[in-house]
Formats: sequence, C-alpha cells, structure tokens
Amino acid sequence: MLKANDPNLHSWIQISPTSEFPIQNLPFGVFSVGEQDPRVGVALGDYILDLCVLGQEGLFDLLNLDPNVFNRSFLNDFIALGKPCWRAVRDRVSILLRNDNAEIRDNPDLMRRCLVKQVDAQLHLPVKISNYTDFHTSLESATNVGLLFRDPENALSPNWKHLPVGYHGRASSIVVSGTSIHRPKGQVKIDGSPLPAFMPTQQLDFELEIGFITGASTALGTSITANQADDYLFGLVLFNDWSARDIQRWEQQPLGPFLGKSFASAISPWVVTLDALEPFRVAGPTQSPAVLPYLETAGNKHFDISLKVYLQAPQQPSVLISQTNPRYLYWNINQQLAHQTSNGCNLQVGDLYASGTISGSEPDSYGSLLELTWNGSKPIVLPDESTRTYLQDGDTIIFKGCAERNGVRIGFGELRNKILPAV
Amino acid sequence: MLKANDPNLHSWIQISPTSEFPIQNLPFGVFSVGEQDPRVGVALGDYILDLCVLGQEGLFDLLNLDPNVFNRSFLNDFIALGKPCWRAVRDRVSILLRNDNAEIRDNPDLMRRCLVKQVDAQLHLPVKISNYTDFHTSLESATNVGLLFRDPENALSPNWKHLPVGYHGRASSIVVSGTSIHRPKGQVKIDGSPLPAFMPTQQLDFELEIGFITGASTALGTSITANQADDYLFGLVLFNDWSARDIQRWEQQPLGPFLGKSFASAISPWVVTLDALEPFRVAGPTQSPAVLPYLETAGNKHFDISLKVYLQAPQQPSVLISQTNPRYLYWNINQQLAHQTSNGCNLQVGDLYASGTISGSEPDSYGSLLELTWNGSKPIVLPDESTRTYLQDGDTIIFKGCAERNGVRIGFGELRNKILPAV
Repeated sequence: MLKANDPNLHSWIQISPTSEFPIQNLPFGVFSVGEQDPRVGVALGDYILDLCVLGQEGLFDLLNLDPNVFNRSFLNDFIALGKPCWRAVRDRVSILLRNDNAEIRDNPDLMRRCLVKQVDAQLHLPVKISNYTDFHTSLESATNVGLLFRDPENALSPNWKHLPVGYHGRASSIVVSGTSIHRPKGQVKIDGSPLPAFMPTQQLDFELEIGFITGASTALGTSITANQADDYLFGLVLFNDWSARDIQRWEQQPLGPFLGKSFASAISPWVVTLDALEPFRVAGPTQSPAVLPYLETAGNKHFDISLKVYLQAPQQPSVLISQTNPRYLYWNINQQLAHQTSNGCNLQVGDLYASGTISGSEPDSYGSLLELTWNGSKPIVLPDESTRTYLQDGDTIIFKGCAERNGVRIGFGELRNKILPAV
Repeated sequence: MLKANDPNLHSWIQISPTSEFPIQNLPFGVFSVGEQDPRVGVALGDYILDLCVLGQEGLFDLLNLDPNVFNRSFLNDFIALGKPCWRAVRDRVSILLRNDNAEIRDNPDLMRRCLVKQVDAQLHLPVKISNYTDFHTSLESATNVGLLFRDPENALSPNWKHLPVGYHGRASSIVVSGTSIHRPKGQVKIDGSPLPAFMPTQQLDFELEIGFITGASTALGTSITANQADDYLFGLVLFNDWSARDIQRWEQQPLGPFLGKSFASAISPWVVTLDALEPFRVAGPTQSPAVLPYLETAGNKHFDISLKVYLQAPQQPSVLISQTNPRYLYWNINQQLAHQTSNGCNLQVGDLYASGTISGSEPDSYGSLLELTWNGSKPIVLPDESTRTYLQDGDTIIFKGCAERNGVRIGFGELRNKILPAV
C-alpha cells in the first residue's frame, strides 16, 4: 500500500493541485462551526475533516485510543498520546481519504457530518502553550540585529556559535492567525530626551519565525540528546514574534526582551507534522567550530520550506516584502530542544519553541522590518508610493510557508494579523 | 464580631504562641495524606484544615460556591473565583476555628476527618503556574550584580529607576519546598580556556525572593494600573530562584538569563494571602526620579517581613547566612503587575511574579551567594570551619519568612531544597 507521503496518493475529495493541504499533508488543528464546541480536525483541500465525528463513529477503534481526545479545545490531549499514536492517526486518516477507500466516500450521511468547508469554520489556537522559548538561530539575523541594536564591533556575541541562544517568552499572549493586535504602549526613551515617556510604540515590527510543538514531557532533572529529540517533536507552525523595537531597546538591558515582545505573538492554525515534512529534510550549514557532543546530530535536521512575508496596507493590495527559507538556519530544532533540556529543565506537552527571526543573506530575505529597512534608514515603498519603516495602524502582516517537491505542496496556510490602534 | 486579623482571636485548637500559622494567618495550600488525592487545605498551628471535607459537609454552603474547587490538585480553580470569594472563605474558616464556634469544635467525627497533622501530610506545589516573571526590584542587589557580573562603571542600567526590570522565566521547572535538586550541567566558559565546556555547574547559587500569585485574569490588549493591581493579588510565597552563575554568565548575552535559571525554581507550600498580611503593610523607599503615571501607587504597598536564609551542610547544624526584609525593595508588587500589563499582556490565574534577589544594604543582608561571598572572594565559614563560596552537593538551603506585630506571627513556613549530585 502507498505510504501517507507518496506523491501518487489521491483522495476522493476534489483537491486543487495548488492546494497547500493535499492528502500528503494532513495537518492537525482545532476548529468550530457556529456555536459548536471546538474540536480537533485535519485540513484537506478546502475542507476540514472532523476527527471528533470520526472518533464517535468508531473509525479509530482499531487504534486503541480514547476518541474523546478529539473532542477538545486544544490538541494537547491528543499529542500527549505519543508519537506512535500521532503517526497511527495520520496513517488512518490518510487511508480513509484515499480514492480507493469507501468507508466515508460511500457513506453520504457520514461524509456530510465529518466534512466542513474551511470558509464556514472558525480556527482556534491549536495548542494550549505550556511554555514558550524563543531562540535566535539565524546567523544572518543575529549578525544584523547585533549591528543595529547592540555593538557593531562585536555584532555576534562570543557564545553564539557554541549554543543556540534563546530566552523564555510569555506563553499567555500567543494568539492564532486572524487575531487583530492592538498597538502596544510602553516606556520608550527618545534620543535626546532626558527621561523616558509612556506612549504607543512607534516601531512596531514583525519577526518571521518557525515554531515547533513538543508532543512529550520529560522529568525535571533529565536531559535528552539532540538525536533523541526526534521523538519529542510533534509538528511545526509559522510564528510571528511581534516586537516593539523602541520598547525593547529601552528595557532590554540587562535581562533581555520582555514587554517589547509579550504584548502578542502569533501562530498559524494548522500544525504540520514532522512526518508530513519528512520528504523536505535537508542538511543545514556546516557548523564551525564543532559543537559540543550534547548538540551533535546525525542526518538531515533542517527543512526546505519557502517562507514569504506580505504587507497589506489599508485599501491596498498585499506586497511581498521578504522571501527566505529555514534551511539556512545555523541551529536545527533538535539542537534547540537538546539545549533546552541540557540543564535538566523539563519539557511539557504543548511547549512552543521558536526559531528566532529567519533572515537570509540578501537584503530581500530579511525576516523583520528592523533588518529590511535597516532600522528605518531604507523605507519600503508600497504600491500607492507611500512608505513604511515600521508598521502603521491598519496594516496587516501575512506569513506564508510551503514546501514543494515532486508536484506535492505541503503548506502551513497563512498567518495573518492586522494592527489596530492603541487602546 | 472580631475580624479575621484581630490579635485577640483564639481558636479551639491549641496553637503554640510561636507558631507561624495562628488563626490570623490561614494560608492556603494543597496537601495529601497517604494515597489520597491532593486537596486544598489551610494551615493552622501544627495542623491542616481539609477544605475538601468541609465543603462536602456543607460548611461553605452559605457562600454560594462550588465546593469541588477544594477537591483539586491546585488552588487555581478556587482562586479563579475572585477576591470576594477568597475573602469570604478565609472569613468563614476563621469563624469555624474560633473558640466560640461549635460547628467543628463540638463534632468529634467531623473534627477527626477535617484536621490532619502537618507531619502526616505531603505538601504539593500549591498552584499550577501559568506564567512566571522574575523581576529585579532590589536596588542593592541590582547594584551588586551590576558590579560583579557586568560593568562596574555602570552597575545600574539606565532604565532601572524608571521601570521594574524583569524577564520571563520557565514555569515548568518550578517545584515545591522539599524537592531535592540535581546540580545542573551546562556550557561554561572557564577563564583562560579558548572554548566552552559542558560540565556540572561549579557556581550553584540561591536567590532569596518573594513571589506573588495572581488570582484573576485580564484580556489581551488591556492594562491595569498599579492601584487596580490590588484586586489581582491573591497571596505571597517565598521563592528561591536557583541559579548556576557560570552557566548564566556564559549564556546571558544578549538575550538574558535562560538555562542558568531554568533547571529549577522553588516556592514555599503555603500561599499567605494579602488579607493576612494587611497589618504588616509599610511604606517603601522614596522613588526618585518620580515614576511615570501608570506606575504611581497610593498607600502602603510594601510588607514588613523578616526573611532569613540558612545553609545546612551535610552532618552539620544549619547556619544563618543572611537576614533581610522586602520592605526595602525599590519597586512594589502593584508596580510590577501594572508594568507587566502596560503593553496589553494578559494575566492568567496562577501567574507567579517574583521580586528578584532581595538584598539589604549591609553585607550580611545580601540575598545570594554571589553577593554574600562577593563572587567567591569572601567565603562563608561553616561550624566545622570548612568554607563555602558556592554550594556543594548535599548542602541544603532553607528560607524562612515571618511578619510579627502585636504578638501575632504571620509566617510562610519554610522553603527547603537539598542539592543532589549531577546526574
């Protein structure tokens, strides 16, 4: 039988060849229709497959799992069942959707109840985020930010090539795509002014990142190696680490980013499994100097994913302002997770670990306005010839991510947030 | 009728006059006996009052609350009921325990079922920590750490007197008193060595702090003022922000503390309510320059609490190594909470906000070994004449905290953790 990632698989559901959600993807999310309670679903073409209904109908009975895990507002209970279970569910869903399987295809009543059009559904934050860490794994971005924000003579901190630099972020303010974000207020210190002022940020920025969700816990005091990390990785999401640069600049010394970040971060609604991304694994850049043994990895731990950032100003078409790829990140996700646990820190199901801004080597591949406009010195020109350094009220930032090979597109959907005025 | 804080209140339970848990305290915690499920209790003298049993017996029926909130492994569901409810429960418990109330006193069967000796009970982490922020609100400690860890010429960062400096910490690794902690491993850069090494920390330290627990949520995008913060404060705990100084020193630039902290933090098991601490409110130090309006507070927002740190080496008596008081902290807890929400960041029930190391102005009042031994240059001498700069395996650190006035002692019990060898 064809495996779930085989490019030759086809479903009995009509799916556009340009869809980011072919039968080879099957990302997990949480959705609701109308007043219905949120439940777990899988994206397929323009539809969502309702796993809650399939579970109630006994279609997962052979997998020996409690189907109530799909009748939940978050994926956490499902992913806590462990990697063999995620895989078994994805494989089972793949089989149910194939054009040669009749279980749903030939049961019009069931089909009507288990398939929802995405346009009719509301998508929710898919995971209750237990803990959130933001790394800064792009050498290009770390160098750019060091040049712009810190000491141009020593742009890269001495530790940067020895460990994946990161910090703990705020979990409560992580929202799903579609959530509008009020311009945050905060303390800023304007050049030349002797005292700080409290005001809406004048330097509202995005950060293009990829995040991964953990699907297993560890006990406090234990560590996992970078190679063991594979068993703890459930899936990836697009991540926007919304940032207020003026607030960040004033508060950041000596203890790191705080309120310049915690007003909001955003994730895409569909969690794309590592299994679906398996065909898109690539080698990362050579790490030199060699990493310490606990950070060594074997095999391809990077992913070839085309990432795009669009800016849409009010009453204007959206404009592509950056294009990059996480394959160039210096540190891979296994190394991030191994580093997080290297001191015995315990993982929890539903932790989110983000890559930090993903910037390529060319100016049109930078993952933040701080870098794209070189701290405001090179404004972006919009279709109506107005310009942007940082974001204005009413602007929308849209991230898209898609991996493509052999005619199969594995996408993340979009991550979209609009900026509302300060309250 | 006498109020719950009246020094003249007495209980029908025999309580030693030196107890930290008189009828005027009534701190909330979570405990279990044997194989019993954890439940909510209140400390009184040498006993714990089982609120789960009292709820089942209908003794809270007049309060119009779901007594099942006491049949939980964490306080969160109870404190989510809001400040009027915490107060009503504390007042009701106070009445039930007074020597002139017969409801439990004259019911031997109920008394037997609702009173547990503390020595027979296991105390659990009282709160499921939703989010954790560590501030650094002691001017003396911030100055000391600046001198030792950063730039002696600019010990205090330029922002320090304008905002309560803080960072997001790791919630998953917060443990309750009594939990032993394995010496963490991590990357350290030894002076003179060209490359970092991965090894057990050689600079394991404690940080004496006070933490507060939030009892109400806010919506993302909204802020609360420092004066409004009173309605969001459930209670205080002792907090040990365990730190590995060599790991911290190497990793901290540019994004702040990370694995040097996240291997473990610890809290005391009893949450002392703000209501019980009301008689111990005092004015804090004058803040100059004046704070911005969103950080202004009226009235006394500091607390007069005697804090003590003991070090117990293996086979030796414990030694008092520091004594200080949070009344001298520069920033108060209302300002911390207002600052946290000033950018619209949402609060959740069960958030923990810690003060940062509490150091007084004298060297015997410093709240960490980094400061007490001045980064190892002034070792502490133990009873057997051995010395400590940082902690050795088998050492135990004990925090105690107690407020005392008019013969009433409102205590936190103790926060105790033993250091085990690295695994």
